[in-house]
Amino acid sequence: MFSATCVAPVNMALVKYWGKRNEELILPINDSISMTLDANEMSAKTTVCASESFKENRMWLNGDVVPFEENARLMRCLEGVQRLALANGAQRFPLSWKLHIASYNNFPTAAGLASSAAGYACLVYTLARLYEIPMNEELTTIARQGSGSACRSLYGGFVQWHRGTTEDGRDSIAEQLVPAEHWPEMHMLILVVNDARKKTASTKGMQLAVNTSTLIQHRAKEIVPQRIKELKSAIQSRDFKTFAEITMKESNQLHAIALDTYPPCVYMNDVSHAIVNFVHDYNESVGSLQAAYTFDAGPNACLYVLAENVPKLLAAIQLAFPNDSQQSVEYVKGIPVPPVETEKCNTNGSVGHVYSKNMLKYIIHTKIGNGPHQLSDEKSLLIDGLPLPK
Amino acid sequence: MFSATCVAPVNMALVKYWGKRNEELILPINDSISMTLDANEMSAKTTVCASESFKENRMWLNGDVVPFEENARLMRCLEGVQRLALANGAQRFPLSWKLHIASYNNFPTAAGLASSAAGYACLVYTLARLYEIPMNEELTTIARQGSGSACRSLYGGFVQWHRGTTEDGRDSIAEQLVPAEHWPEMHMLILVVNDARKKTASTKGMQLAVNTSTLIQHRAKEIVPQRIKELKSAIQSRDFKTFAEITMKESNQLHAIALDTYPPCVYMNDVSHAIVNFVHDYNESVGSLQAAYTFDAGPNACLYVLAENVPKLLAAIQLAFPNDSQQSVEYVKGIPVPPVETEKCNTNGSVGHVYSKNMLKYIIHTKIGNGPHQLSDEKSLLIDGLPLPK
Repeated sequence: MFSATCVAPVNMALVKYWGKRNEELILPINDSISMTLDANEMSAKTTVCASESFKENRMWLNGDVVPFEENARLMRCLEGVQRLALANGAQRFPLSWKLHIASYNNFPTAAGLASSAAGYACLVYTLARLYEIPMNEELTTIARQGSGSACRSLYGGFVQWHRGTTEDGRDSIAEQLVPAEHWPEMHMLILVVNDARKKTASTKGMQLAVNTSTLIQHRAKEIVPQRIKELKSAIQSRDFKTFAEITMKESNQLHAIALDTYPPCVYMNDVSHAIVNFVHDYNESVGSLQAAYTFDAGPNACLYVLAENVPKLLAAIQLAFPNDSQQSVEYVKGIPVPPVETEKCNTNGSVGHVYSKNMLKYIIHTKIGNGPHQLSDEKSLLIDGLPLPK
Repeated sequence: MFSATCVAPVNMALVKYWGKRNEELILPINDSISMTLDANEMSAKTTVCASESFKENRMWLNGDVVPFEENARLMRCLEGVQRLALANGAQRFPLSWKLHIASYNNFPTAAGLASSAAGYACLVYTLARLYEIPMNEELTTIARQGSGSACRSLYGGFVQWHRGTTEDGRDSIAEQLVPAEHWPEMHMLILVVNDARKKTASTKGMQLAVNTSTLIQHRAKEIVPQRIKELKSAIQSRDFKTFAEITMKESNQLHAIALDTYPPCVYMNDVSHAIVNFVHDYNESVGSLQAAYTFDAGPNACLYVLAENVPKLLAAIQLAFPNDSQQSVEYVKGIPVPPVETEKCNTNGSVGHVYSKNMLKYIIHTKIGNGPHQLSDEKSLLIDGLPLPK
């Protein structure tokens, strides 16, 4: 029996991926750029076991059995990695051996934070470790076929996913722009918002957008290339102001395109928009761009903020969005936040408007992080090929 | 003393006006098309008095004194009409005589339903009556300089406001496409939504959009001209399906552009989006497009619907958006709605989802209407040059 266990991080897009040019191969209509988050706060963990004695491929997600052979995207990832293994020549064990796979997310799926990117990145990375394939850009094209943005979670730091031009998508790869060490002060506060609305899944939303929005092609062809160029330069020079402005404009444009879809797709809610207002008010009150929001296909806000500005921003959020659980240790999760240094805080830290109570469910404090890594066998999620008890 | 009293209607845009190419002259970046609403439900009423004995120009809006000479837009309208009067030759009284003006809106300004269009249209129309200028397209260019969309309220039925190409705006006129009699079955339900958020005024929102949205010029140049063409044809042929689809897409795109503005402008709220979902669900449940929403720079929904479909649509709204005031005569205002003919109503008329209670403040039932008209002197809002007591 051979086995590998790995962890892969979540990534958060700055220039957004929205719309495919090929649904099956998951080829995007434009480049995107993301930041990889620290795996400590949010990540997927996967164990893959191969054994001559396994009768069939099996998989467990968060402890529950999930279909395997019926899942086209899963199979595409498996076949992709096996093709690479074959090309590599020497194998530890025959490719015909069946696999058992167990995967966990260390963050609540219910929070609406995209888990598929970390999940598929972790699957592909772990399969590569199992088949002893060194990390290479072709793996990103395989992860991409599981879930588009998964290709970006194979690297740490800031990552660009290239649209590519070939029909088979071999040049639609992810590429690391800079490692996490380039800008380690880049932190993030994730504001998890209470929401119970029925939403359009992002796969469906993108498809509808490509088919019906009269603005999306203009965005993909004329707007995104310029923003990619400007954001890369802002990241290289650690220019937070430019970084923040492009990030917020990109988030707004993603949701504008979703709204221009027919029927319209609406992912942000009144609370999301209240957070947007708060961030603009906050930046104005401190006299510079210190926080930048971005929203994916859901109502939760991800705020980019430099480490030194986290305590003050968090204090202002607590004042503007009062919450009954504010004092609970469960309310602000992740990296501990030092108390605000009072001399840095003008008056009481308030930026004015106070919103209704309990608009937020909780807050996660995290930061830029590295790509996937392998764990020792003791950390395996499978014992004798079966998942650990729930 | 000479006096004229007139009434002018509200209009509701189908292809939206959003963005000026000249702020001062109020010249739009694209054509727009609107439907004029019946003056019975919502209109402005204005009396203008001219007298040799008046010491200064004075104005009262809804009974309150408002500045006159300091209001550049007001003065521009007055000077515009006086220039026409001068060109017309014969005058009943010298142009130097000062004016007293009183104006009322017969609908709550607080409802967020654009009152400036009806107000400026009424002012210009009443001034024209006072100075005995026959209705002509030049009056629309004068009303336009009071409030852009006011030019469309000078005609009944469906009206196109041309962008124009000249720098002085003399060809940026409103033109009647068809009178109200062309499609008298065109009714409207206005769902007035509870909302207390701070919003960006539409003048400011448009300006920001033109300066910061990277999608607005593409919309104005490439998307709107095609939609104008298609909507005109749908109106000519009374094709409600095409009419409805263009109307909804246009509303969505206006709000997409507002969201693509930096900082973003958000006019719709969660209730507005719930209504959007309801309309799509409703149309699906009846198997054809019977209702079409449009939203201006506010959260209230205007639903276009043919007269024969009003009772059933209203019944479905009442089921989906339950309200404690539902039985009150004040809840559904305007044209009385006959009870639903049961044989026309499948099961209980519900389209599925029931939203939280009291999302709507009230509902107005109105329909397509005619342009402004003059009232007899007994209807004057001024007595001896002073407004009626409140």
